[in-house]
Amino acid sequence: MNTGQALLTDLYQLTMMQAYRDRGMDRTAVFELFVRQLLPQRNFLIFAGLEQALDFLEGLRFADAELNWLRGSGQLRPEFVDSLADFRFTGDVDAIAEGTPFFPDEPVLRVVAPLPEAQLVETRLMNLLQFQSVVASKAARCVLAAPGRLLVDFGLRRAHGAEAGMLSARAAFIAGFAGTSAVEAGMRWGIPTYGTMAHSFVQAHDSELEAFEHFARAFPQGSTLLIDTYDTEAAATALVPLAHRLARDGVRVRAVRLDSGDLGEHAFKVRRILDEGGLNQVLIFASGNLDEWKLRDLTAARAPIDGFGVGTRVNTSADMPYLDCAYKLQEYAGVPRRKRSEGKATWPGRKQVYRRLDAQGRPAGDTLTLVDDVQPGEPLLQPVMRGGRRLAPAPTLDQVRAHTAAQLERLPAAIRGLDAAAPYPVDVAPALHALAEAVDRRIDAAGRG
Amino acid sequence: MNTGQALLTDLYQLTMMQAYRDRGMDRTAVFELFVRQLLPQRNFLIFAGLEQALDFLEGLRFADAELNWLRGSGQLRPEFVDSLADFRFTGDVDAIAEGTPFFPDEPVLRVVAPLPEAQLVETRLMNLLQFQSVVASKAARCVLAAPGRLLVDFGLRRAHGAEAGMLSARAAFIAGFAGTSAVEAGMRWGIPTYGTMAHSFVQAHDSELEAFEHFARAFPQGSTLLIDTYDTEAAATALVPLAHRLARDGVRVRAVRLDSGDLGEHAFKVRRILDEGGLNQVLIFASGNLDEWKLRDLTAARAPIDGFGVGTRVNTSADMPYLDCAYKLQEYAGVPRRKRSEGKATWPGRKQVYRRLDAQGRPAGDTLTLVDDVQPGEPLLQPVMRGGRRLAPAPTLDQVRAHTAAQLERLPAAIRGLDAAAPYPVDVAPALHALAEAVDRRIDAAGRG
Repeated sequence: MNTGQALLTDLYQLTMMQAYRDRGMDRTAVFELFVRQLLPQRNFLIFAGLEQALDFLEGLRFADAELNWLRGSGQLRPEFVDSLADFRFTGDVDAIAEGTPFFPDEPVLRVVAPLPEAQLVETRLMNLLQFQSVVASKAARCVLAAPGRLLVDFGLRRAHGAEAGMLSARAAFIAGFAGTSAVEAGMRWGIPTYGTMAHSFVQAHDSELEAFEHFARAFPQGSTLLIDTYDTEAAATALVPLAHRLARDGVRVRAVRLDSGDLGEHAFKVRRILDEGGLNQVLIFASGNLDEWKLRDLTAARAPIDGFGVGTRVNTSADMPYLDCAYKLQEYAGVPRRKRSEGKATWPGRKQVYRRLDAQGRPAGDTLTLVDDVQPGEPLLQPVMRGGRRLAPAPTLDQVRAHTAAQLERLPAAIRGLDAAAPYPVDVAPALHALAEAVDRRIDAAGRG
Repeated sequence: MNTGQALLTDLYQLTMMQAYRDRGMDRTAVFELFVRQLLPQRNFLIFAGLEQALDFLEGLRFADAELNWLRGSGQLRPEFVDSLADFRFTGDVDAIAEGTPFFPDEPVLRVVAPLPEAQLVETRLMNLLQFQSVVASKAARCVLAAPGRLLVDFGLRRAHGAEAGMLSARAAFIAGFAGTSAVEAGMRWGIPTYGTMAHSFVQAHDSELEAFEHFARAFPQGSTLLIDTYDTEAAATALVPLAHRLARDGVRVRAVRLDSGDLGEHAFKVRRILDEGGLNQVLIFASGNLDEWKLRDLTAARAPIDGFGVGTRVNTSADMPYLDCAYKLQEYAGVPRRKRSEGKATWPGRKQVYRRLDAQGRPAGDTLTLVDDVQPGEPLLQPVMRGGRRLAPAPTLDQVRAHTAAQLERLPAAIRGLDAAAPYPVDVAPALHALAEAVDRRIDAAGRG
């Protein structure tokens, strides 16, 4: 994913770059990425996608074919396009760690770079970071809603294209899912891959039991059989003698999958059928339009379901398929900047987020302030890139996943819950208020002439 | 996009393939892709993504690195993985044309191929077709809601990854958008690219008017200036003398952009300021959280807005970020098949959709039936691939766009509307009812033993 990303940008980034170049405006710019607000039903967000963002910045080049196309487009001057051949991202990046909870107005990533560089990368940075963060946040809610259950990402087929399928598998794994059905995500990142069987396998056989036997014998070490194609309980009942017969041949049926109807009701009935048939060790796996609320309901009802395939609604973050995020200029040439558009005003300057912990080590509130205004608590933004190069190798996905689990574990109970809670407190320090007022006075004094 | 797609599949497709191979189950399978139901606020869907689906099928190969990874994963038998080296898709595909409206239960694509081939391709086919269709459908509603206005896709930054940004730009263009801000989509498909300027450009200057002048002079043939960074009307007022001064140097300000506040109210005020200042030819462009309903309201209010940048809500199809679609086995080895899971039963057999036209040439209702049961009307599914090869070159995007426009034009008025209408009639022919009953009797007779 390191090449061919230079044109994953909005045209205006390139036209602005040309205009900056015309005026020699290549001094240092500071941009910060943040989310403006949360939907009421979300109490926190989880930051994800940093490694892809850093890959993008390190690898950013214009290929010859891209330069040729830009020249032919007629939208940019040829000598400006020529200059892009040497383009490299040479800036600095500070960011919060992947898997860390964050809240509105808090910068999660800061880019400090010559203005044209910092401008060009806006589109793809937002594209990578907002999507993984929105999915990681949704997936984390699923994990919290179904403690101790195995959750597997099943969503590639209805993800928004291939990259969405890959990045959502990664984000869900970070958030605590056990793995994914997407084979490519297994190859790319070593995420454990899981699979069951499809209705088509059953339908392609003239007998459902024959289908079960064929599939089980193909994977004697353990298979998951889909039992809802025609009649769930009838299939479970018929499976009992088959599973015993297969066991005598060393063939193990590991689980059955339910995919339709009232999953909880079917699970209770199927569990009883399996237990009464001596198949206590056969697990029950369920899927079908699941999200955090359905997982909570099934868990609360103590439905005997050991694992869940969770797909579309998490991969598309169906109730909130995007974050109201922004990447805004906060300083240029040493001067703090501020946008004041209605409802979209921003806090100026280079900022830091301090997270205060209570006596039990749980986050008690954050302070948003300027980088040089040290406050109590843990500073969340840390250096990750200097001069266009990563400062350290990427952590492993398992490390990120463990960090996320620890962070979720210590979130206040109300914030962890699925229902809307009182907002997590994010205070704006006096120093930042003072700077914003100073910037306003400067803008008003400069006027617009 | 032709290589490296073989592992964009669910693990179970590969495990089922291995099990099919064990049993020599490689006879002809018929799968159809369809949508189960629509959300109440959608009256029609637009089919899109066929060309990417056919590219995928034609180019499908397992690369050596993919085969090596599969061998190492331990989830498949080595000799089965070896056999994948020669895998090619050799099947037939029939489909409705891109840009054609469709409705629940209607097959939009039929794959007829040896069972293992037809099974493997399920995941990526759905991934490509459902996403472009969901975006094309949403974008078409925007086009219908704002007749005569220029609509431009601005959504790459909050699309679900890079491919989502590209495919949604394509889908929106098919649906009638004028173009996109995504440069890569311009290079890949020749979609016209549009750009304005960002708040950061204004903020990076000490004076807003200086920013306007710098940008305008960089693009003397015409530029769009963003005027809401501090105070929209004040910026418009200050622009008047600047624009006249620039015009004397041959520098043209083509448009201004509004991006915050009440867009309609600002547009009326700004239009008056520009007109009174003699800038009648300067257009007004607006953006910011737009969707079909906001476009309809602004259009109904006769807001003097000439064009709209429409982003996130269309690129993510925010109110319906996925379709309840399925790719189901309808026939194997010459025998019609049917899934009967609760709430998810399917119509068996190879099917065709006939669209009846009224005296004015408008669709009056569809008939869903078997391919050999000819009905009045136009058969929508047409052959597009035989033996794994396309039957004809892909139509140009302009051709697809013109087809879509003509199809939207002739849809019944209530179906074209944004509000929920009486469902478009889709009848199931007696022949299909009869086949479904026959399949049910066969399944019941076979039992599950």
